[in-house]
Amino acid sequence: MKRGFGSDNHSGISPEVLKAIADANAEHALAYGDDEYCARVEQLFKEYFGPQAVVSFVFNGTGANTMAIDAMVRSHEAVICAETAHVNVDECGAPQRIVGCRLLTVDTPDGKLTPELVMTRMHGFGFEHHSQPKAITITQSTELGTLYTINEIKALAALAHEHNMYLHMDGARLANAAVALNCSFKDMTTDAGVDVLSFGGTKNGLMIGESVVYLNPELAKEYKFRRKQGLQLCSKMRFLAVQFEAYLQTGLWRRNAEHSNRMAQLLYSMVKDIPQVKVVYPVQVNGVFVQLPRKVWTELQKQYFFYDWDMDKDIVRWMCSFDTTEDDIRNFVEALKKLLA
Amino acid sequence: MKRGFGSDNHSGISPEVLKAIADANAEHALAYGDDEYCARVEQLFKEYFGPQAVVSFVFNGTGANTMAIDAMVRSHEAVICAETAHVNVDECGAPQRIVGCRLLTVDTPDGKLTPELVMTRMHGFGFEHHSQPKAITITQSTELGTLYTINEIKALAALAHEHNMYLHMDGARLANAAVALNCSFKDMTTDAGVDVLSFGGTKNGLMIGESVVYLNPELAKEYKFRRKQGLQLCSKMRFLAVQFEAYLQTGLWRRNAEHSNRMAQLLYSMVKDIPQVKVVYPVQVNGVFVQLPRKVWTELQKQYFFYDWDMDKDIVRWMCSFDTTEDDIRNFVEALKKLLA
Amino acid sequence: MKRGFGSDNHSGISPEVLKAIADANAEHALAYGDDEYCARVEQLFKEYFGPQAVVSFVFNGTGANTMAIDAMVRSHEAVICAETAHVNVDECGAPQRIVGCRLLTVDTPDGKLTPELVMTRMHGFGFEHHSQPKAITITQSTELGTLYTINEIKALAALAHEHNMYLHMDGARLANAAVALNCSFKDMTTDAGVDVLSFGGTKNGLMIGESVVYLNPELAKEYKFRRKQGLQLCSKMRFLAVQFEAYLQTGLWRRNAEHSNRMAQLLYSMVKDIPQVKVVYPVQVNGVFVQLPRKVWTELQKQYFFYDWDMDKDIVRWMCSFDTTEDDIRNFVEALKKLLA
Amino acid sequence: MKRGFGSDNHSGISPEVLKAIADANAEHALAYGDDEYCARVEQLFKEYFGPQAVVSFVFNGTGANTMAIDAMVRSHEAVICAETAHVNVDECGAPQRIVGCRLLTVDTPDGKLTPELVMTRMHGFGFEHHSQPKAITITQSTELGTLYTINEIKALAALAHEHNMYLHMDGARLANAAVALNCSFKDMTTDAGVDVLSFGGTKNGLMIGESVVYLNPELAKEYKFRRKQGLQLCSKMRFLAVQFEAYLQTGLWRRNAEHSNRMAQLLYSMVKDIPQVKVVYPVQVNGVFVQLPRKVWTELQKQYFFYDWDMDKDIVRWMCSFDTTEDDIRNFVEALKKLLA
Repeated sequence: MKRGFGSDNHSGISPEVLKAIADANAEHALAYGDDEYCARVEQLFKEYFGPQAVVSFVFNGTGANTMAIDAMVRSHEAVICAETAHVNVDECGAPQRIVGCRLLTVDTPDGKLTPELVMTRMHGFGFEHHSQPKAITITQSTELGTLYTINEIKALAALAHEHNMYLHMDGARLANAAVALNCSFKDMTTDAGVDVLSFGGTKNGLMIGESVVYLNPELAKEYKFRRKQGLQLCSKMRFLAVQFEAYLQTGLWRRNAEHSNRMAQLLYSMVKDIPQVKVVYPVQVNGVFVQLPRKVWTELQKQYFFYDWDMDKDIVRWMCSFDTTEDDIRNFVEALKKLLA
Repeated sequence: MKRGFGSDNHSGISPEVLKAIADANAEHALAYGDDEYCARVEQLFKEYFGPQAVVSFVFNGTGANTMAIDAMVRSHEAVICAETAHVNVDECGAPQRIVGCRLLTVDTPDGKLTPELVMTRMHGFGFEHHSQPKAITITQSTELGTLYTINEIKALAALAHEHNMYLHMDGARLANAAVALNCSFKDMTTDAGVDVLSFGGTKNGLMIGESVVYLNPELAKEYKFRRKQGLQLCSKMRFLAVQFEAYLQTGLWRRNAEHSNRMAQLLYSMVKDIPQVKVVYPVQVNGVFVQLPRKVWTELQKQYFFYDWDMDKDIVRWMCSFDTTEDDIRNFVEALKKLLA
Repeated sequence: MKRGFGSDNHSGISPEVLKAIADANAEHALAYGDDEYCARVEQLFKEYFGPQAVVSFVFNGTGANTMAIDAMVRSHEAVICAETAHVNVDECGAPQRIVGCRLLTVDTPDGKLTPELVMTRMHGFGFEHHSQPKAITITQSTELGTLYTINEIKALAALAHEHNMYLHMDGARLANAAVALNCSFKDMTTDAGVDVLSFGGTKNGLMIGESVVYLNPELAKEYKFRRKQGLQLCSKMRFLAVQFEAYLQTGLWRRNAEHSNRMAQLLYSMVKDIPQVKVVYPVQVNGVFVQLPRKVWTELQKQYFFYDWDMDKDIVRWMCSFDTTEDDIRNFVEALKKLLA
Repeated sequence: MKRGFGSDNHSGISPEVLKAIADANAEHALAYGDDEYCARVEQLFKEYFGPQAVVSFVFNGTGANTMAIDAMVRSHEAVICAETAHVNVDECGAPQRIVGCRLLTVDTPDGKLTPELVMTRMHGFGFEHHSQPKAITITQSTELGTLYTINEIKALAALAHEHNMYLHMDGARLANAAVALNCSFKDMTTDAGVDVLSFGGTKNGLMIGESVVYLNPELAKEYKFRRKQGLQLCSKMRFLAVQFEAYLQTGLWRRNAEHSNRMAQLLYSMVKDIPQVKVVYPVQVNGVFVQLPRKVWTELQKQYFFYDWDMDKDIVRWMCSFDTTEDDIRNFVEALKKLLA
């Protein structure tokens, strides 16, 4: 299939990752994570996130987010999130089914929670009729391509901890955020007060493999049992672990994220001044959200795959990936312009 | 790690499988299974299991079994299984948590259910105080290395269907069974009356990837939603699908299973006459279960990895894999004999 | 405790109900509903709701609503409701835990859904990433003391059925609604297209006892098992059933509801012209919602029990009960006026 | 319906209980347990079970047992119980659905667990593939009419606590046990090391009302939220509480249990020497289990209601209730003898 702008998971596997899998394909290894590959990569995560961090390799983002929520709340408790959060909108109710808890949603202008917005859902503590707020979840970078600053994260962590609550970060695109903010993963997570992180790789060059990083080790106590019962335990786990090793150790995460962010900036720069195109959110990472005449984008979709985002407002989403090329962008904008003409 | 006899998932990836992954790593593909690779492999499953069959790629065996149970029963219903069934013993209660149902277990001499054994749990139909029996699950080949004949499967399917129940087969090692019975997958499943199958590949050379095959298409109606909510939806699904393509189309499943079965026969033939070694179950596929003096096997475990199976009865399990060599067997038996001497 | 305006469940048991319990307390009766009392009252429900109606006696409103939702949706499906719905706000996440589904909430001006409001949540049909809308739930009368007209209910039922969805009515205060609309229960439910009803009695004079009335008999198919597993099966069920018999057959439901509605009207008429008091919702049944200076209502709460409703907007709720007297109202308003002076 | 021997919940309400309900039916009371009646009865439970005990009133035995299990285990943990335990056999899988855990069952000769029997299921600690044993549940008196001595309970509590596990007692018929053992409730529970108790009253003269008594206050921490979300929160809770007040304070529990136990002894004494009747379990409380020719008992069931217990072995159960009379017994035995003649 022609390269389009559908999602950063439409691209394949970075060659470094495939090589790491092939390299690990030798001899026997204990299953379920009790092998030397996993031990090595677990250590690597401690280097990246601090010595207290515990990593748990899982299969997909829904699994990572659900296991993270499962560690923070019991069923009578609740998680506060943006209305647009992936965990709210795009996981077919997995947290409700697997954890049994409520999500308390907040409308946001840009996909970002603020302490003020969160406070609107912090009610009913101690009142048995209401699900008890126990966690806040944010996405970095957000589903709308926007970013939390480190200070914004710290403010949410402080608010959470003041109320004996936890802060979770959905980091499906954490690498794009780190590159954009020019900071380390640790700056945005451990050092900002995040308690548990969904650390994704699939959208940035991995084949299959996400992870939960328990930054607050209290939350890791039962993870092995919960992961197994939560259908997320991989038998040949070395092949998940070594993908992350290639990702972290060779700087692949940075190279790929820098590239996709840069491609989004290129795309943005080429469309921002077109009169019929309105970019609706700041372009901070690898996605460009634009409003444009419906007739145009349905025509454009015949040439390039991308998703409708908000049908009511005629907004579409263009995602750049680690393998998007400058030519892809140029050809795409040319096609767009032709349709607009 | 040295090749041992711990599990058939201690081995790595068959080269054909790795190559298929690499070959599919080109350009973009739609995520979540809406791509041409998946379409092609779905078609392939119809060739293997009949045109009505619907395949759903999932991540692991626990996921496959739980999704299969989820399709057959609601929470107030029950699944009848052998006490030794993987789904009962080795999945940390996943069906109870995810589906909320009961498993009604039956003691068996050899890991195999019979109509007579199943009948002992078929009580309380229509009585609201009792979980309603709605499915039977069998493992082919069983957790004890034994096999159901096709007629035995048919008898269980007939019993299930007579009572408006379903028959599920956990086929984590279905290839080993097909080779041993010298029959096709379809002979043992669709044509024997199985309603839904967990079809595994990981234990026989795949990297990551199991599947649920809905042979009774009624059971497939909601699978996409249940898989997503059940944390089993892979984004870059082409990389699951093509593993199965390599597995099925090149005869890899057969080559690998023939080999591991043959290695188990070799091992069996070399230990069966050793006086202090008692083979406790028929060696029908790729596992050998033996009773031997505890002191001996704890010593032997220092040289080769394998699992205790039943500590009360001093039984251990020796599993052969697709990469087990004749030399591995010879060296292992030699080491054993030395310890017994 | 002095009679206040806290809730219509702060009152006790209507004498007719207590007498019915005492009258049924003779000899033995089969447990779990298989007795002649239950048979008789089940028949009575058919007279009230149509011959197809199936009643299931349960313990409380949370149980009734959760069992109703359980009959309509599976975990990957969703129920559309008002943000203020009891099932959303006041049940500590019971539907999420017991059914595992999502509730899709809509902000409303007055606690009432409209087809237009419902349509804003009817997205993503067939898209596996989104919980599938499968039911609409409305409360009659609403948590804000407002009413749906019969035509409004019909419009929502039509919308639901058009989309292969169900309509549930939370009728914790259905009697108050019937009196206010001067219609029968059947007019508002069966004949308006409601599929399943939570029919409450506790708030209007019963001791303990709510019910689920399956108006669409398709939804009743598995209720006995689901009720048992859902912790709602009463052993001495005759004592639930006969409460409803007294309630329905002697016109108690009407007498009690007429009285509490009339008391609310009296209260409304006595406060509506007080300058510092603003009645914020139409007074259609037995509750009066007013905005008034916080200092005043905290003082008033020292004399009479009632609930804060919306702390942000200084709104309180005054509920009248079947045992509220005219003197209660007069004394209360007098105390209020004194504080306002 | 004629008094039979079906169940001790086929009888009605003890007059003292009905009077207590009527007496509490005055004025208003706060709902959901925040009233003076509940406060008073909560205090009473502390007198009976020790000052640390926390009582939670719930609706039925399934609710009590499920809430107790919910307090002890998480979904990846397991409860060890007798195969015949009510919680295993007669609750339609409620613990599996509501808690998501496994029950690990043990065959017993007489419905009683012993440390030896429990030990057969205490495996796999720390192994993520296996549900972690975390609680033991016993029924006092058992479903087979047998009793644990206080020392037997202590031995099981010691075993549980040694392994960082909890001991739960299903006391649906605790009064019958206390009378038979001539001890207090506290002797058998708090002082014997029980952590949490389902304390039943319905089978011994209450109308509706069971309770969970958290003897280990650690387990009570979240009970209010779990009870609400678990569909067990009664709004007019005073009417549950005062039933227990009448039960405990007037010695009603003892009078009723003494009577039903005595009736069972009378029945036993009158049938034990009949040649075709074989009493199969010790008659220690209010039930008599007998094996007799099927033709005889199906005929006898036409005159008196009682349950088949084990169809395979031709065993039936005869339960005596607080309102069983000596004449009931005599007439029943006479009818039996006639049929046997």
